[in-house]
Amino acid sequence: LRLRATAKNAISDGQSHILEFLFHPKSIAIVGSPSQPAANQGAGVFLDALTSFGYEGNIYPVNPKVSEIRGYKSYHDFMSLPQVPDLVICCIPAPMVPGLVDDCAKRGVKAICIYTAGFGEASSEGRRMQQEIVELARHGGMRLIGPNCMGLYCPSTRLSYSPLLSRESGSVGMFCQSGGNSLALVIMANYLGIHFSKVVSYGNAADLAEVELLEYLAKDPETSIICAYIEGMKDGRRFFDVLNETTKWKPVAILKGGRTGAGAEAALSHTGSLASDERKWQGLCRQSGAVEVYGLEGMIDFMEACLRMKRPTGRRVGILAWGGGPSVLSTDDAVRAGVTVPRFSPELRKRMNQVISEAGSSTANPIDSAMLAVPSLISEVIRIVADSGEVDAVLIRLPFAVGGPPFDLATMKAAAEASFQTSHSTGIPLALVMPHGDTAESAGQFMELRRICLEAGFPLFSTTSRAAQALSIFIEATSRLEHPSGD
Amino acid sequence: LRLRATAKNAISDGQSHILEFLFHPKSIAIVGSPSQPAANQGAGVFLDALTSFGYEGNIYPVNPKVSEIRGYKSYHDFMSLPQVPDLVICCIPAPMVPGLVDDCAKRGVKAICIYTAGFGEASSEGRRMQQEIVELARHGGMRLIGPNCMGLYCPSTRLSYSPLLSRESGSVGMFCQSGGNSLALVIMANYLGIHFSKVVSYGNAADLAEVELLEYLAKDPETSIICAYIEGMKDGRRFFDVLNETTKWKPVAILKGGRTGAGAEAALSHTGSLASDERKWQGLCRQSGAVEVYGLEGMIDFMEACLRMKRPTGRRVGILAWGGGPSVLSTDDAVRAGVTVPRFSPELRKRMNQVISEAGSSTANPIDSAMLAVPSLISEVIRIVADSGEVDAVLIRLPFAVGGPPFDLATMKAAAEASFQTSHSTGIPLALVMPHGDTAESAGQFMELRRICLEAGFPLFSTTSRAAQALSIFIEATSRLEHPSGD
Repeated sequence: LRLRATAKNAISDGQSHILEFLFHPKSIAIVGSPSQPAANQGAGVFLDALTSFGYEGNIYPVNPKVSEIRGYKSYHDFMSLPQVPDLVICCIPAPMVPGLVDDCAKRGVKAICIYTAGFGEASSEGRRMQQEIVELARHGGMRLIGPNCMGLYCPSTRLSYSPLLSRESGSVGMFCQSGGNSLALVIMANYLGIHFSKVVSYGNAADLAEVELLEYLAKDPETSIICAYIEGMKDGRRFFDVLNETTKWKPVAILKGGRTGAGAEAALSHTGSLASDERKWQGLCRQSGAVEVYGLEGMIDFMEACLRMKRPTGRRVGILAWGGGPSVLSTDDAVRAGVTVPRFSPELRKRMNQVISEAGSSTANPIDSAMLAVPSLISEVIRIVADSGEVDAVLIRLPFAVGGPPFDLATMKAAAEASFQTSHSTGIPLALVMPHGDTAESAGQFMELRRICLEAGFPLFSTTSRAAQALSIFIEATSRLEHPSGD
Repeated sequence: LRLRATAKNAISDGQSHILEFLFHPKSIAIVGSPSQPAANQGAGVFLDALTSFGYEGNIYPVNPKVSEIRGYKSYHDFMSLPQVPDLVICCIPAPMVPGLVDDCAKRGVKAICIYTAGFGEASSEGRRMQQEIVELARHGGMRLIGPNCMGLYCPSTRLSYSPLLSRESGSVGMFCQSGGNSLALVIMANYLGIHFSKVVSYGNAADLAEVELLEYLAKDPETSIICAYIEGMKDGRRFFDVLNETTKWKPVAILKGGRTGAGAEAALSHTGSLASDERKWQGLCRQSGAVEVYGLEGMIDFMEACLRMKRPTGRRVGILAWGGGPSVLSTDDAVRAGVTVPRFSPELRKRMNQVISEAGSSTANPIDSAMLAVPSLISEVIRIVADSGEVDAVLIRLPFAVGGPPFDLATMKAAAEASFQTSHSTGIPLALVMPHGDTAESAGQFMELRRICLEAGFPLFSTTSRAAQALSIFIEATSRLEHPSGD
């Protein structure tokens, strides 16, 4: 939560970014709105989303076959609209799109979001049409989002491309070349109580592309954390220049689609994106202070870490686990994720042995003892570790909560609560893990513990590997922040 | 399920392995049984486990302070027992263990399982005592399991070291140097309806170690799949010789604890194991036809794949996904896991384009189309892919089931059922994925779909990465089987 403070002093020079207008349209036309929109699906989703979000501007459905759609007057064509809308959402078939773009640009529409697919990703004719619509838009001074995209989600101005997304505003800004991935990421995050400032699904990136979107979110005072899903780069050099500046102010995570050969071919079919050189890409990300994540879950873990973990000042982690085997595997996971698990000094081990006496326990880091089932002992162990200064964070791996004490949920809850309190009182960052095993019985217990963690404002990870990776990328993504802890 | 057939003709020469007696004790003494055993915990777990499993032999608790424990007559010491038990479970403090081992060996006990910790893993005095008890046991012709272990789980003879484990027998055999990891793995597997033939938690491996355990499970007609968690090797050369023979008959997966430097130090504290050279280890595993898995989840996925997936005859995978971004990431995941996602031939793409017509769809592999929400279309697409012979398996990545149609559970269920039927009718192996997002709302839907998959005998994976890894290790682990499909 400390990171939110950073956003206020961000890169901003006090002036709005040139794209700010995109998120404040006073009127929206949906051209090609289905006459009987199916909820959540296809072109019908836009009307559903705007009405269910309570969008306050004028909404103009355009469909030549009907006079009314869900209580809204429907217009025969774009030219018959009673006013020039600020934003047009285009859902008509691809061959008709150039004509619409021309009309919009000539009448002074500020931006058009093209949901329609079948352009640069599809065929040579599609590539030609994509080039044509970009030229028409630029000629008329209109910005073009997409084609082949979902467009804009901005809860504060009640813009959305799906009725399923949260109405609440948050501090995560995201640009995402895939509508499907943006939906999945927002929904997964929403379930965890994480909300967004602005999300842009920008598809083929024919006009509006990654550089401007990053610049916008870097300046945006509502955004403190930036996430990106990118398949291809329009202007890699400028992107990395902007990234290099942005990461001094806000943590940035990038999920790259099409990293493998077959994935790159899929990306070409998806958004017409040409993948960049893989190794060059990795190097540039690292140099510019952004972190790379793998998979949707990695991106969610990044958000949770930034929003809910105290930032460790170094990579040394103390591990607490019930049982030797889990503590060994947790240590392997941590090291593989890029943090270290240093052996405790003789002095610290001596102190630890005074509180953990049971045979079969390990006290040198990882700490492994069945005695950890006692909450007051967990608190004491965390306190001793925090006081020692020998580690920068604590990772606690709870066992399955599968049976009678001490493997029951009550014990796990008490352990979690003791951990939260001691993390607060000592200031040591904490990553809590409980495996959930993907089955109803075990996952039910995980979900209940998750609820308690959310209330306390701490993340809960389902594997030590995810927890350690979250710690590692959190440290990396915040390492260049000029005010990393907000003071 | 085809793999079960293999076990019947396994390595077995018709004779029982020398360790067979371990799983058929007619009487068991628990020396150091707590007078008031806490369920599930510490030394008390053994009496709980045996009584709750309905173990039919004589059980003799030994505790000098009481005359009865939970209805069983308690004996003052080992020497006062009315008969020589076949198996002794030892829970007394470490310094007293050599005396007990000496008594047992002298009186003709066949095996002793030493739960007590504080031996080779703890100190130089512990190492000395460990050496002493091994010599005493060998001198008396008695086998020693542990020390620092949980011992034997064999549902068919009602042996268990935890009341939480399944009473049902299955075909997975496991040896596990960590009691905690063995508990977690058995419980996770049990929840998924996977059951075990024999599990041995063997701790410090002072006497009974990995070579004999592998040999035993290789011969055991009840075991068709072998899993191992290993921290250190006593006799690496012989182990790999036995492994090399075993993998011709049964798939073997190994989870190695202590692979990293810090992990190896933790393993030394845990079971006194000295880690082997990492690269040499990997090479030997690969050469001998075993697969390495990472983390408990990887081991579970191996079991599910072996028991519930049809074996692909090659590594070419066709991917079906809703949405371009998910299909791109799924392709990256698949390639990273070691399978291939070949572009379809022009002929196959032409056929595919006849059934998938919607703009914005991709039909070249990965197949990405919102039309996949229609179950009959899924069936048709799978059938076309299967008929083509261009891929060896199909991976289907369902979207979150988060809202109204087509993102609701009913659509996902119908999609899953259509996939199962078409996999059956065409014979193409299938890996089904639905992300669950680790939250109550999304996981609830995942669990419901999981239930349907279990009923149909198919696995369900929560990420494409896990599904692709399961496919990949399944292919690898079964590549040397002499009768890989049981015929």
